[in-house]
This record gives sequence, C-alpha cells and structure tokens, in this order.
Amino acid sequence: MASRERIGLIGAGPSGMALLRAFSLAEKAGAQVPEVVAFERQDDWGGQWNLDWRTGADKYGEPVHSSMYRDLWINGPKECMEYPDYPFDRHFGRAVPSYLPREVMSEYIRARMQDVDVRGQIRFSTAVRWVQKHDDGRFRLTAQHLVSGESVVEEFDRIVVASGHFHTPQVPSWPGIESFRGQVQHAGDYRSAEGYVGKRVLVIGSSYSGQDLALQLHRAGAKHVTTAYRKQPQDIAWPQGMDEQPEVQRFDGNTVTFAGGAQAEYDMVLLCTGYLHHYPFLPQELALGGPNLLCPIGLWKGVVWHDDPDVLYVGASQQLFTLTLLEAQAYFARDVLLGRVEVPEAEERKADMDAWFERMTQIDGPPAALAYQGAYIQDLSAHTDCPEVDVEAVAETFLQMRDARIEDVRTFRDRQHRSTVTGTMAVPHHTPWMQEFDDSAENFQR
Amino acid sequence: MASRERIGLIGAGPSGMALLRAFSLAEKAGAQVPEVVAFERQDDWGGQWNLDWRTGADKYGEPVHSSMYRDLWINGPKECMEYPDYPFDRHFGRAVPSYLPREVMSEYIRARMQDVDVRGQIRFSTAVRWVQKHDDGRFRLTAQHLVSGESVVEEFDRIVVASGHFHTPQVPSWPGIESFRGQVQHAGDYRSAEGYVGKRVLVIGSSYSGQDLALQLHRAGAKHVTTAYRKQPQDIAWPQGMDEQPEVQRFDGNTVTFAGGAQAEYDMVLLCTGYLHHYPFLPQELALGGPNLLCPIGLWKGVVWHDDPDVLYVGASQQLFTLTLLEAQAYFARDVLLGRVEVPEAEERKADMDAWFERMTQIDGPPAALAYQGAYIQDLSAHTDCPEVDVEAVAETFLQMRDARIEDVRTFRDRQHRSTVTGTMAVPHHTPWMQEFDDSAENFQR
Repeated sequence: MASRERIGLIGAGPSGMALLRAFSLAEKAGAQVPEVVAFERQDDWGGQWNLDWRTGADKYGEPVHSSMYRDLWINGPKECMEYPDYPFDRHFGRAVPSYLPREVMSEYIRARMQDVDVRGQIRFSTAVRWVQKHDDGRFRLTAQHLVSGESVVEEFDRIVVASGHFHTPQVPSWPGIESFRGQVQHAGDYRSAEGYVGKRVLVIGSSYSGQDLALQLHRAGAKHVTTAYRKQPQDIAWPQGMDEQPEVQRFDGNTVTFAGGAQAEYDMVLLCTGYLHHYPFLPQELALGGPNLLCPIGLWKGVVWHDDPDVLYVGASQQLFTLTLLEAQAYFARDVLLGRVEVPEAEERKADMDAWFERMTQIDGPPAALAYQGAYIQDLSAHTDCPEVDVEAVAETFLQMRDARIEDVRTFRDRQHRSTVTGTMAVPHHTPWMQEFDDSAENFQR
Repeated sequence: MASRERIGLIGAGPSGMALLRAFSLAEKAGAQVPEVVAFERQDDWGGQWNLDWRTGADKYGEPVHSSMYRDLWINGPKECMEYPDYPFDRHFGRAVPSYLPREVMSEYIRARMQDVDVRGQIRFSTAVRWVQKHDDGRFRLTAQHLVSGESVVEEFDRIVVASGHFHTPQVPSWPGIESFRGQVQHAGDYRSAEGYVGKRVLVIGSSYSGQDLALQLHRAGAKHVTTAYRKQPQDIAWPQGMDEQPEVQRFDGNTVTFAGGAQAEYDMVLLCTGYLHHYPFLPQELALGGPNLLCPIGLWKGVVWHDDPDVLYVGASQQLFTLTLLEAQAYFARDVLLGRVEVPEAEERKADMDAWFERMTQIDGPPAALAYQGAYIQDLSAHTDCPEVDVEAVAETFLQMRDARIEDVRTFRDRQHRSTVTGTMAVPHHTPWMQEFDDSAENFQR
C-alpha cells in the first residue's frame, strides 16, 4: 500500500481555512483524503482578520501579518461576501446591517468553521522559513516554532500556498521623498487616525481602501485630505476638506508637485499603494510574482502553478468577490489534490491561462471586472461541488454599492442590501457611519 | 592541497565591514586567508547607519533594516566611537563638534574602508533565508537575490553572523493596550516627530535612546511628554512639559495607570523598548537568544558560539563602546578563523563564559558597566593586533557626557570632548542642539 500523501499548507487565514474545511467535508462524505498539515505564523487562525495593535514586528519579532486597523468596516456590503452554505441569517439569527465592523466579520468567518474539526491539523505560531523541491520530487519544508524556537524539516508531496494577500506593503518611491519632513506611513502600518488629526494629509492611492482611509482621516479631524490617483480620477463627490489630485511627481521638502503642475504642502503622507506578492520562503521557480491581477501570471485556473503543478495557490488573485472567491479556489485546489480535477498538459494549461489573461485585458470598468471574476468563479465551480454563488446577483449588489459610493462616499455604508442567498433585506445600523466611532461587536449588536 | 576554506558572513554593516577589513589587512600583511563571502540585504553597506525613509517593508517587501530617524544625532560624543587607526582629525582634516548627525557618522564609517578593497566580496540586495549544518560538518546557506528573485544554496565551512543589533523591535504588551485609541509606534518605526506635535505622548522605556526620542518630541512641539521607566528613575532634570513615571501597569482606553497608582491620559505611545536578538535564518541550535546583555549568553568571548564553534557572532553584545567594540570582536573573530586564536575545549570555554557572566552580575552602575566592557575589549584585543583603544580614557569621556546629561539633557550635546586618540579638543557646533533642526552633512560642515 502506498503511504498516504502529505500536503503542506502554508497559512490558515480564510484561504487555508476554506481548504481545510473542504477536505474535511470530502472526508465526511467518504473520500480518502491526504494528510494536510497547515503552518500558521499567528497564534490563531483568521489571517488578515486578526487585528494586531502592533505594527512592524509582532511579539516574536516576525513581520506583523494583519493590515487591519481600528474602525475598519468592510468596504463592500456583507451580501457580497456571504458563504452560500453559511448565510448571515444563520450566523446572526436575525437581519443585521449590510456593513460589519472587522470584529464581527472575523467572528463570522470563524463561526462558519464549527461544522468541521480541523484545528488539530494546524501548527500555530509556526513560520515557514524555506521550501525546496528535491531531486526525488518531494518538498522539504523548513518551519520554525516561534515560541520554542525549534525548527523542523518536513517532507511533503505537494504544497499549497495560502499565505495571504495583504501583508507585505508595496512601498514605491517618488523623487525627493527623502526630503519630506513629516511622517510617511503605509496603510499596512496604519492603526489609528490620532496622529493625523489637525494635519494636512496626502493619501497616495485611490483604490477603495485608499478612499476609505482618506475618509477615516477626514471624519477623525484631519485639517485637509488629498487623495492622489494614479490612473484616473474617481467618480467621488469629495466633501469639504478633501480633494483629489493626479499622480505625485515629486516632493521638495513638504511641497508636493502633482502631474499637471499643481502644488500643495502636506504634513503627513499615507501610502495606500497596495501589497506585494511576497513569498520569502519560496525559491523563485515556485514563487508567484508580478502585480496584483484578477488573473495572476503563471497560475492555471488561478490556482495551479504552471511551472510545477505540485504547487498550488489559494487566494492569490485580486479580490472582488473575496470570501466566495477563496472558497471556489479552495474547492478547486482540493479537487486537484484529490485527483478529481485533472490537470491537463502544459500546452493546454498555457492556452487556458492565455485566454483568461487576454480576456482580462479587455476589461473596461467595474461591471466588466465583476463579470470577469464571476465567470472565473463559475469556471472553477463547474469542476467541483463548491456551494453555488449567484455571481450575477452579487455583482449587481456590488454595483449598487458603487453607485451609492459615487453619490456620497460618506453615507454609502448606511445603505441596506439584500442577501442573494436568503433574500433577507439588511436593516439600518443604529448610527450613521460618519458618526460611528465604536467598532466593537458589542456596539454593533446593540 | 586542501581547498581554500569558505566563510559565510551574514551582514555588511559596521560589524561585517570591520571583519572584511581585518581579513584584508591580514592578507596584505602576508597571511593566507579564507574566502569570505558576505551577504547583505541592503543595496549598500553601512547597516543601521543607512537611513531608510520607509518603515515596515523595504522596497523589496523585506523588513526595513534601519531604525534611524530624521534628526538623529549620536547619543554619545564621537570621541567615544573613534577608530584608533582612523581618527576624526584625519577624516575631517580639522577639529569638529563632539556630536555628529547620522549622515556624517555614516560617512566616517564608510570613508574608513578606503584602505581596503573588499566590496567585491559582498553580495548586496541578498537576503539569507536559511542556514543549516549538514552531517558532513559543512553549512548550506540559502540566499535569495532580492532583485532577480534567484536563490542559491552555497556551502561554507564556517559562518559569521553580523546581521545587526537594532533591526527587530521588541514589542511587549500591557494589559488593555488594545483599548488605547491613539497611535502606538515602536521607535524602530519612528522617522519624524510630525504626528506627535500638539499631542500628549507616553514614551515607554527610558534608555538613552528613549530619553533622546522623548526630547525630540518635546522640542518638536509635543504638548506633553512622559517617559515611563521600568527599573529606576533617571537622574534627569526634565524641562517643563516633560515628566517621568514608573512602569506602566495598564491601559483603559487612553488612560494609563502607572505603578504606584498615578494615572494620566495620552494621545500617542512611543515604545522605546529595545530590540530582539532575531535570527529567522538560523535554526535554534545556532541562534543567539536571550536579552540584550554586555555578556550575551552562549558566546565564548562574546564571539564564538559555544554549542558550535564553527559559528561566530560579531556585534551581538550590548553596546557601550559601539564601533571600537565591534572592531575588537571582528579582529578576534578573524583570528579565531585564521587559527591564530585557539578555541579551547568546551569546559574551558564554559568556565570563561561563566566568569564573565558572574562579573556582569556585579555591575552596580554606569561606571562599572563601562569598566566591564573596557576590560572585555582589552581581553579580546590581547589576543589580536586590533588597534589599541584607551578604554579608561573613553570611559572617562562617557562619564563626562553622563554628568552633562544629568545636568541638562537639553544641552549635553552642545559640549566638547577631547579625542583619546589624537588629543584634539572638539569645537562647538554653530547651533545649539535644541534649536538645530537641520541634520544634513552640509549644514554640519558649514
């Protein structure tokens, strides 16, 4: 009898959790499943959703994983992040508002794991230091327990990388930035608006989270907040005390020059410039690189590493659908690992990747981007028994949110949306978001 | 003929630079030296002295190495950090003030390397990922080039760890800290006082650098600055707008309770809680741990790893003498590697380590600490041709600085001290430190 296959899973955030759960459900249904061992740097699962008040180094001296901050509320309605097999109605037992504070969202992701018993497969407080494929075709994974300091080298047949998407800041540079005298902080190190109160703040980057942080600083009492976009202006009606500028061209001390020549002075800079694909534990030939894309380069079906199909990724794609995207990828990865989904030969994989990439280049705006990722999720799910998501209805909800955001970025979180799973309509939160400075679960449930 | 021995050196900051230079001088004098290959994560040498405006992640997504900040001036007189074989007189060509801004100090450390040609031995922008000793007694060192992403595994006979001392923040916790609504920042992430202007700031940690940062915030316009000490109050006459409190007991929101029961409210917290021995590329059996001590635990002569004498450390001790301490350790390491210094058997090493440790426990204040490290440097240097330091005279200079600091922490940097190498007396800087907000080399030289 061949020995049981061993899978090394790196990360136990929402992606790793989804994979462990998917395996457990398959096993309950009678499948023979491989031994999956998960390595998680944090003391608990939940990944990004575990707020750490620390920045820079965690209590072990490792890079802090979470980029979340106080007063973070989800930036799309919860109806766009609903697990079809664990509806919010079941979780809360009643209708709740569409926008959840971090802590409540985090509880939802954890509570949903109650139907499986997989925590024992996770080595917590354990950092993966290096993974190398040897000539025998097996992987040696070196991991270190952060409490005891002990390191182990373990062998695995295949590796799943689910180490997250929002942990390693991408920090570009601008001419003269070193002459800026104020504080320059990446959003990943942002926890509190306090240092920004009364200041003239430049927020570089205008994605949803950049807009969110700009607004956080505004409502907390920043003197003025400018958001600088890179590609095109946002269709946002900025309130008094905020404005928008094109790309930063240079810094001369505290004076910033924007493309087009406009200049302004700032006291503080907040970089909302995104995150890197960063896998310091992987050799180049196994490591995903490139920008954050809906169709990451080198992954067949966004999951299987083309150059070595014994390596899989979950959660590497740019996220619009978030939790349900991870879910579709986790089920697909599981079924590849179970042999239920056949990985075609290189040429066929390449053709499929190229087709999806080409299709991505045709995207001309948010509706097309949502349609693209919806189609991608459907493509994955067609191969698995992943609980079905009504991707069109979710995309529709996203676009409603987007319209509300354009109408008034201050009030879009006060809207209600309808569940595409249960049909339940959300209820209003007791306090308008602009006046809500308590992000506790207790206050939310009140 | 046996093949030439290969030494893997991790880090090309002041410690690694000193070791490379010491080897080069020995070779010029006719010695047969091993092949030394240095791995440096940054793009340039200089280690900690290379200010990075970034915090958190560097441009490659790696942890930022430097903890230096704008307006950092050395916190002891330059006369305590003078290389005997490269006096400041030679570097500047004239007498200059005792206190140098970071940039000027950095230039001094680099300029001193002009008499050797060792940069070619350094692999820049290269992170060491893992080091493992194999059964054949040789080390496999896995390193990754951060620009190309390429990784290599190289074999070495011995390893020298010189990866620095002030790069990985030690971030302890306090009850209730997660309820604090302001910003909590470790000194390692501090670059600018801007966010602290007008705020009530609690600085936790009262070592020299804690005091320095407290004073930086005060002179930059913080509303109030408290420094909290852990062991005993500092003999410092704090100016109006500053005070001192004992250990923090807990946070309740923004209210802080100190040992003894005093309470106060703060807007911001700056953690000057020191740095960790953090070697994420070393297995536990080779990794120095424990607190930051004059006599680090497990290192014979503060240099040779007792459990495996094929591993050496330079720059791991708590630093009072700084550059000249690193120099003494580098020469000692070199001479161990050259076989000029014999490493005794385990029992003898142990006895020597125990004796130095015991002696450390007798230290009852700064004069004794300086005498201890002076004696340690002399002990090392007795075995090598390391240029001699007049440790008593340097200790005397340190104590003059300390007295000046106690007298007025705002003006001690305006004092002048005498070189123990050349006898040259420093000259006053053109601007009192409290009013000096230009830390450029240009302004200093003016």
